[in-house]
Amino acid sequence: MNWIEIAGHTGALLSSITFVPQVYKVWKTKSVGDLSLYMMLIVFASTLVWLTYGIALNLWPVILANGFICFLSALLLYFKYAFSRKVVAVTKIEKPE
Amino acid sequence: MNWIEIAGHTGALLSSITFVPQVYKVWKTKSVGDLSLYMMLIVFASTLVWLTYGIALNLWPVILANGFICFLSALLLYFKYAFSRKVVAVTKIEKPE
Repeated sequence: MNWIEIAGHTGALLSSITFVPQVYKVWKTKSVGDLSLYMMLIVFASTLVWLTYGIALNLWPVILANGFICFLSALLLYFKYAFSRKVVAVTKIEKPE
Repeated sequence: MNWIEIAGHTGALLSSITFVPQVYKVWKTKSVGDLSLYMMLIVFASTLVWLTYGIALNLWPVILANGFICFLSALLLYFKYAFSRKVVAVTKIEKPE
């Protein structure tokens, strides 16, 4: 394996784990207000497109990396929905009028 | 161009614009507390690796997409630094003791 291949594998690995710290942070803080919903929707949509591409051409690195990122972006979208609702509920209790 | 090539280009385009809505949201709200610093550092590092890979193999789509994402992640890192400092400064003014 030459250095260019190593760079390709390193890039693929780094791209795969991009959203791991964000999922962990949101899971710990239950706070999603500063996260862009559109960013997550674009990530989710792009991984579905890449998955289709990878499956059509039988590219396992593309399939594995995007399958993993797709799962993480779906988790973030669920967190965004669940924890945004929680803030609305708390606001309503604090200001009942 | 067959549908697989179209999927590849669509995926590349979507991946390129992933962080545009997040940069816009942070720029408008000046709020970065929920964003993971490690996510941004990984994005920045991965795009540098992909840029090296793209330049070595003369892959212009890889170079252009990652150059753009690299620029956006550098912007997010700067915002994270600048707007986090602002919150610390305000906290110090409010609680001077």
